[in-house]
Amino acid sequence: MDRRSFLKTSALGGSAAAATALAAPAYAQGKRTLTMVTSWGRGLAGVFDAAQRCAETITAMTDGDLTVEIKAAGELVGAFEVFDAVTAGQADMYHAADYYFTGQHPGYQYFTAAPFGMTAQELVNWYYHGEGMAMHDELGELFGLKSFLAGNTGAQAGGWYRKEINSPEDFQGLKFRMPGMGGQALGKMGASVQNIPGAEVYQALASGAIDGTEWIGPWADEKAGFFEITKIYYTAGFHEPGAGLSLATNREVFDGLSPAHQKVIEIAAAEAHQWNLAQFLNNNGAALQRLQAGGVKVLNFNDAVWDAMGVAAKATLDEYMDDEIFARIRASVEKSMRESSSWIDASEGAYRKQRDRILG
Amino acid sequence: MDRRSFLKTSALGGSAAAATALAAPAYAQGKRTLTMVTSWGRGLAGVFDAAQRCAETITAMTDGDLTVEIKAAGELVGAFEVFDAVTAGQADMYHAADYYFTGQHPGYQYFTAAPFGMTAQELVNWYYHGEGMAMHDELGELFGLKSFLAGNTGAQAGGWYRKEINSPEDFQGLKFRMPGMGGQALGKMGASVQNIPGAEVYQALASGAIDGTEWIGPWADEKAGFFEITKIYYTAGFHEPGAGLSLATNREVFDGLSPAHQKVIEIAAAEAHQWNLAQFLNNNGAALQRLQAGGVKVLNFNDAVWDAMGVAAKATLDEYMDDEIFARIRASVEKSMRESSSWIDASEGAYRKQRDRILG
Repeated sequence: MDRRSFLKTSALGGSAAAATALAAPAYAQGKRTLTMVTSWGRGLAGVFDAAQRCAETITAMTDGDLTVEIKAAGELVGAFEVFDAVTAGQADMYHAADYYFTGQHPGYQYFTAAPFGMTAQELVNWYYHGEGMAMHDELGELFGLKSFLAGNTGAQAGGWYRKEINSPEDFQGLKFRMPGMGGQALGKMGASVQNIPGAEVYQALASGAIDGTEWIGPWADEKAGFFEITKIYYTAGFHEPGAGLSLATNREVFDGLSPAHQKVIEIAAAEAHQWNLAQFLNNNGAALQRLQAGGVKVLNFNDAVWDAMGVAAKATLDEYMDDEIFARIRASVEKSMRESSSWIDASEGAYRKQRDRILG
Repeated sequence: MDRRSFLKTSALGGSAAAATALAAPAYAQGKRTLTMVTSWGRGLAGVFDAAQRCAETITAMTDGDLTVEIKAAGELVGAFEVFDAVTAGQADMYHAADYYFTGQHPGYQYFTAAPFGMTAQELVNWYYHGEGMAMHDELGELFGLKSFLAGNTGAQAGGWYRKEINSPEDFQGLKFRMPGMGGQALGKMGASVQNIPGAEVYQALASGAIDGTEWIGPWADEKAGFFEITKIYYTAGFHEPGAGLSLATNREVFDGLSPAHQKVIEIAAAEAHQWNLAQFLNNNGAALQRLQAGGVKVLNFNDAVWDAMGVAAKATLDEYMDDEIFARIRASVEKSMRESSSWIDASEGAYRKQRDRILG
């Protein structure tokens, strides 16, 4: 008989006094504070909100038995040090974008977004009903983490540029901020790519340390203030078509929690994914209108630029195929993406086309 | 000092014995079973799964302090009687599609899907970050319910027909199963529309009581077996572009729960929405391939048919505009939909077009 059945049986079968004596210590034992480190500056629009949503939901659903305390980037460790802090047990959990940690394992790219990869909806299809969650867990086992999707920005904008991009050659020598394998692909196109934490991007762009940057989308980008520096904005990009954020708990800490508290963390993370994606997508339309009203020029890359991005993205992903886990994750993602998108095109895609035609 | 702070202070500051004496009765008081009635036959693919997901998540996150017991359609009350059963206190909660209850209030249409209305993503944008959840709550207050979105089928297929639909006139006299205002719109096009619970649709189609039916999409439709009766299948439809399912709790029951348990129900419902949508969308692609391999002919309505559907849908919605709440919900939905879809087109839409072009 496991501990849970034992407690339940006692509570039902024993006297009220016996039930109290047994149940109360188990309840009290569960009371603890978990420290969450994040890659986000405090209050950074959308991404810090997702971390906060996880923390508040976990705390509220357990009536404080699990109280999650957030540390913003730099408060305990730096933005990109959260992974090591949690694997080492210096903090209990992190909230971040897992593609910051492709140095730890290239497979993490797929739990944010791969260049020319999945949209947010395709990602959740694969994650919750395909092989995604199990593969995230497989990576976590390597590092002593229990990871869950816990936020999403939706399809990210192509980014802010000081000069228009009219051909693939315009990336030659361009100093650009883009993390993960999207950035590596831009590097193959000749860009000088840097990864800079969100809270530091504005300063880098303002000082001329970089010529351009992608960040997220109109709402978060507007709050970051990039339009004060340049007015050239590309709305669609190849690099993060539906960027997932993750909540990862130190595995030993997670394994020490009750099954109920483990489920609370799992469900809070999943709910934050949906809540956060809706937050970005609800706010982006109006923000884009405001940016345009303020003189921002909204552009799309031409087909030649997209083609070059496609070649560079494939070449980048191909470089990691010697890693067995990476290769397996990539195959799983690409198969799932084809299946998901075929139906989405045939149903919602066809519907949207008719709706746009009829409603204008 | 509120009860929560009081308990926390005691547990921290008092002796272990005092903490036990205070905490244990509060814990024990919370233990109860909630009866959930549903509009779904037991095991009905996707929709019953969403109800079950809610029930299991609530039970697991509270370690059984709230144990949800599901009654399938007909086990306690009929499929369409669940609303009245919960408002009357005969059951604690229902899981259903709220457009079954437009007879109670026409505004409920918008919490499933309106003809030519929101996709699933547009719905969650509005629900969690626009006015949606508050408006759902406003309707709930009228009837003594606390309602949450708790599932979604994605964009529904146009449905199964015994004969091809080549012009709007082909709907004249057609006996067709379609609930809610989508069905009323088809009625304006001359169809004889019926609302039949999911578990009874196959028999109605097989017996010839109806000439055709919409149900959900390839995966659920395949399990329902409609392909055994007819092979003509339209993949896109105007009637339910992202059909939400709801979990509604009797408001007095809900108000009597602790804030932590209220939060558990809220978050479990929201998580079930994402989980269920991903379930449908993950399974539909492969199911459509199987249906086609089995001889099902996949078709799209032509523009003339879509145009007629657009006229009929607008006329149907317009009929309810005398209801102040309906009019307010409709205006809110249509404004949010325009804003959401403008960004989704500019980012994900543009990306998907390029991805499809490049990856084929």
